[in-house]
Amino acid sequence: MSVKRHYEREFVRTFFTSPTAVEGEDDSAKMLRSAAQLSGMQAPDVWVPDNEDATAPSMRDEGVENIIEVVSEHGADFPGEIHPRIVWHRDSPGTRYQGFQHMLEIADPDNGAVDHIDGFVVPEVGDIDDWKKADEFITIVENEHGLEEGSLSMSVIVESGEAELAMGDLRAEMGRPANNLERMFLLVDGEVDYTKDMRAMTPTGELPPWPELRHNTSRGASAAGLVAVDGPYDDIRDVEGYNERMVENQAKGMLGIWSLTPGQVVEANKSPLPPKTGSWLLEVGDREIELDAEDGKQVYRGDDVGLESTDDGYVLRVGGEEHELDEDELRQELLDMTAYVPSMDDIVDSMEEFEAAKEAGKGAIAMTQSATLVVDGVEVELQKDRMWDEATYQAAQTPITLFQDVYEHRPDQHEELEEMYGSDIVERATDVGN
Amino acid sequence: MSVKRHYEREFVRTFFTSPTAVEGEDDSAKMLRSAAQLSGMQAPDVWVPDNEDATAPSMRDEGVENIIEVVSEHGADFPGEIHPRIVWHRDSPGTRYQGFQHMLEIADPDNGAVDHIDGFVVPEVGDIDDWKKADEFITIVENEHGLEEGSLSMSVIVESGEAELAMGDLRAEMGRPANNLERMFLLVDGEVDYTKDMRAMTPTGELPPWPELRHNTSRGASAAGLVAVDGPYDDIRDVEGYNERMVENQAKGMLGIWSLTPGQVVEANKSPLPPKTGSWLLEVGDREIELDAEDGKQVYRGDDVGLESTDDGYVLRVGGEEHELDEDELRQELLDMTAYVPSMDDIVDSMEEFEAAKEAGKGAIAMTQSATLVVDGVEVELQKDRMWDEATYQAAQTPITLFQDVYEHRPDQHEELEEMYGSDIVERATDVGN
Amino acid sequence: MSVKRHYEREFVRTFFTSPTAVEGEDDSAKMLRSAAQLSGMQAPDVWVPDNEDATAPSMRDEGVENIIEVVSEHGADFPGEIHPRIVWHRDSPGTRYQGFQHMLEIADPDNGAVDHIDGFVVPEVGDIDDWKKADEFITIVENEHGLEEGSLSMSVIVESGEAELAMGDLRAEMGRPANNLERMFLLVDGEVDYTKDMRAMTPTGELPPWPELRHNTSRGASAAGLVAVDGPYDDIRDVEGYNERMVENQAKGMLGIWSLTPGQVVEANKSPLPPKTGSWLLEVGDREIELDAEDGKQVYRGDDVGLESTDDGYVLRVGGEEHELDEDELRQELLDMTAYVPSMDDIVDSMEEFEAAKEAGKGAIAMTQSATLVVDGVEVELQKDRMWDEATYQAAQTPITLFQDVYEHRPDQHEELEEMYGSDIVERATDVGN
Repeated sequence: MSVKRHYEREFVRTFFTSPTAVEGEDDSAKMLRSAAQLSGMQAPDVWVPDNEDATAPSMRDEGVENIIEVVSEHGADFPGEIHPRIVWHRDSPGTRYQGFQHMLEIADPDNGAVDHIDGFVVPEVGDIDDWKKADEFITIVENEHGLEEGSLSMSVIVESGEAELAMGDLRAEMGRPANNLERMFLLVDGEVDYTKDMRAMTPTGELPPWPELRHNTSRGASAAGLVAVDGPYDDIRDVEGYNERMVENQAKGMLGIWSLTPGQVVEANKSPLPPKTGSWLLEVGDREIELDAEDGKQVYRGDDVGLESTDDGYVLRVGGEEHELDEDELRQELLDMTAYVPSMDDIVDSMEEFEAAKEAGKGAIAMTQSATLVVDGVEVELQKDRMWDEATYQAAQTPITLFQDVYEHRPDQHEELEEMYGSDIVERATDVGN
Repeated sequence: MSVKRHYEREFVRTFFTSPTAVEGEDDSAKMLRSAAQLSGMQAPDVWVPDNEDATAPSMRDEGVENIIEVVSEHGADFPGEIHPRIVWHRDSPGTRYQGFQHMLEIADPDNGAVDHIDGFVVPEVGDIDDWKKADEFITIVENEHGLEEGSLSMSVIVESGEAELAMGDLRAEMGRPANNLERMFLLVDGEVDYTKDMRAMTPTGELPPWPELRHNTSRGASAAGLVAVDGPYDDIRDVEGYNERMVENQAKGMLGIWSLTPGQVVEANKSPLPPKTGSWLLEVGDREIELDAEDGKQVYRGDDVGLESTDDGYVLRVGGEEHELDEDELRQELLDMTAYVPSMDDIVDSMEEFEAAKEAGKGAIAMTQSATLVVDGVEVELQKDRMWDEATYQAAQTPITLFQDVYEHRPDQHEELEEMYGSDIVERATDVGN
Repeated sequence: MSVKRHYEREFVRTFFTSPTAVEGEDDSAKMLRSAAQLSGMQAPDVWVPDNEDATAPSMRDEGVENIIEVVSEHGADFPGEIHPRIVWHRDSPGTRYQGFQHMLEIADPDNGAVDHIDGFVVPEVGDIDDWKKADEFITIVENEHGLEEGSLSMSVIVESGEAELAMGDLRAEMGRPANNLERMFLLVDGEVDYTKDMRAMTPTGELPPWPELRHNTSRGASAAGLVAVDGPYDDIRDVEGYNERMVENQAKGMLGIWSLTPGQVVEANKSPLPPKTGSWLLEVGDREIELDAEDGKQVYRGDDVGLESTDDGYVLRVGGEEHELDEDELRQELLDMTAYVPSMDDIVDSMEEFEAAKEAGKGAIAMTQSATLVVDGVEVELQKDRMWDEATYQAAQTPITLFQDVYEHRPDQHEELEEMYGSDIVERATDVGN
């Protein structure tokens, strides 16, 4: 038997935090209220009214009242899940007790919010025994308020070395009779506090990249049937950097990311979805340059690669070095230097083609992509073959499964998805593979 | 007491899979038959008749028959070890039972194959308790067929987050009386299914590099006395890429790799062996350029580095920047930019020299490499010193120990090794360090 | 309750080993004697008289006598801690027993050295049960000599796969009643022997970078309340490489490094301290170029980036590509390409400013850095904003906390610190944040 998932969403793209209370404003719940009314691509998969770091310590009781008020009023219409972040600290029993009291209050059915609350987010957890303390408090909350045991999910922020290690124990611990850790939902990296806890530092004060932490979080989620989410990207104007981070995360199996603004939510909702149109990349050294598609040709404009046709064949210049090549060698070299980014349409096509082949009794088929590459005005025809077998098919399916999960759970995004892809592709993408 | 190794080979360079049955062919065992007759550099250290992914689901019973037939006939002459891959899945008891039945059948002494079978490869394993299920089935197979307990080895394909974590538990679990996990042999990464299990994705559909997985596999092998093997490299025409991957793996302590074709087997058999001749590298930015050896000089041809002799000294241009240097500074800069790749002969020389020094009571000696470097026609004499102590000696010994392991277990490769190195060097390399 | 630290230093910058005995010298303790008399920036935080690899096997009993003699004589005046490295091997009971006997001897109060001995360094440890054996021997040593249980610390060299895994178990094992592992102090990576144990190899024989090992050591230290130290950098002339390694380590939370020479000690003592003056970096591709500060302007001299003012705006050339930009776009692009390395003074300023804001009831404030950037004679004014909240404040505090730890425990470095920073900044830095 594989691990049971108690929650509905298998994919979470966006984890969006909003302060629960802002000091010195007439309506301290203003930001909470505006977050609660987001919809479509601006609304996150998981919305986190944040009563921890985003709310001033002196305002946290008021924050709880605001959560109750705003979620009661807008929760029924909010298109994503709602998981308030309460206060917690592995080293402070006082903070943990405060978090427990806040959960008791928020989940009180008399307050009218709990019907729209999917779970709680627990920050600053320590080792697995600390996770069990939070789980136990949620069990008591459920019991006191007549909720089904395990009905509230628990997500944690991984921001200490011991929490990182705990993710390796989680699968084994989740089965034990004395806890309800099956309620676990998200493993969220919190790189700012993690950096502090690890006592790491960089000359400029930028956060270290922490690739191993992200790997371990993704692996922990995979092993325990949970969902991995990366931490906040605090340069909120740097849209390109945010997108690069997400592409890097996706290659680690971490498909979700924290969003600090509705603008970041839009980017993060779209990032794991395949593009509308395919494109060709030219890899030069460590860089990947997207080629310009013009009249069906793929044009390179830049100085790092040069191509000249000579009497004997071709001279290809890459970086500082020149290579004399005949036509076959040139084609091979360029094949190695190029890559194709398939569109949603391409992926659905390939999956359908493979499914048909499988039904016809074939275990593997070759998929071909063709292009005319233009460098310095010289044109070269390329054909890229890739063998698809069952394993390729299943790996290619991940973006489609994610798309289908989104389509099922986020009707408020249907319109935008149809605008992005056209309704024909949306329909085929929701059907394929089932 | 350190971990016991129950198997003979300590180094496995090549893990070569062949389909056990091909649909629609007169002789469905054709590919199996041809793999069984490989020898020399074309024959792998471990040959894996693959009754899982490489064989169509409907053909797997026939695959078992084919394994029995081909191994009975050719097994005695096959120069490497034979480890069939059976079907298994951590989430499917039906698949596991099928794998058990196939092992029972293959290992039946009445069928004549088991004398040449060294063990089984179990794919898609889960956590350590799942590994124990496979181990238990093999124990029952041994018991039913009167084979010595533990005589069949077990190798696993690591292609899930929980299997990656299990490698951290293996050392402690191997000692427990209720299992025979001492039979463990290879830890093989399976990146295609791992990517699917981790739900990772890349824009182009290429596999992520998974450096942490490979590290953890290598570490797990080291801690439990096993052998780590990297997964398949599916762009089979990309010989350069396959070789780069192996060099990267070797720096992680992962000396073996999966081969999909006899051509890949040849590359993978040779990759971890030291080169016949030494060479000099120039490091420019992130790239390493091998210099051309001409008339005993090391010549750089390229545009990224320039060197000019002036009245005051030298101007060295690296990337876009120029440095005015005197002769000493130039030499120091170039020393930092160059590296020497020792030949087999060099390594044996250095080891012998250190052994002699040690016998004479010295704990550390300096080894020197000299070269004349030529950039833009300007010649510079370089001398690279390196201190050798006991630790350096032992670390340098790894490729030699591997060579000696190969030489002992693969007489069919002696001729090719002597062609590669000359018989004199082969003889010294088999003697040194013992 | 968080993990108790039994030792005084929370930060160890330098782990300096000296041979305890040198064969063939009149005074075999000469190097030990000279190390014992270091002070100021030349003296390490932790000095390790090394009776293992740095001392010839035949000289190890003499090494113990030398440690006793030299530490008795100079220990009281040595400004750092003293932790002799004894012999040990996870696979050799004889070596372990020898290490035990050496510890008994060194810690014998009759010999006069133990008052100045802070603990022992145990190399070549295996899994956690092997660590417990060393811990038990130290407990017996303490008991035999009437020392308080746990008063001698234990540091280990992590140089095997199983020791790397053990760091994940340490936090849980440290609490068990049958051991005194709370005595643990340093986790030190030993990459030469680790490379051998992992059977890793590189073409040139250089050590692999082992990023995952360093991450795991830093995480293990964080989870168990210990201090992580990187291994030796054996190209002792390569000061730049040593410094780059330290910056890389610091981003992993590994603030200490092994030093092989007093020259390396100086570098390693200074590396984690913030610079006296701030500086601007320009990031081009993967490289970071420090700009020249001239007349308050930040000047780029190089060929990789070009800037030209045109009638329509600007042309910015980066690598091989040209971008036509208006003034706002140019400023944005350059903001993305630049980073500021704050000085000690800047960090103290920002911390004080944030503390004042916090007292005034603000949770977050913007910190601004301004600069005039000059590329190809074209000047551009830049302003870099960064939001500081409690988490930023605490993460920024790490270098200051380290500085304060140094200042408290190393009075012998006060003079040099005041020379480096000026006494005013030193005073403010010792006060801030308390």
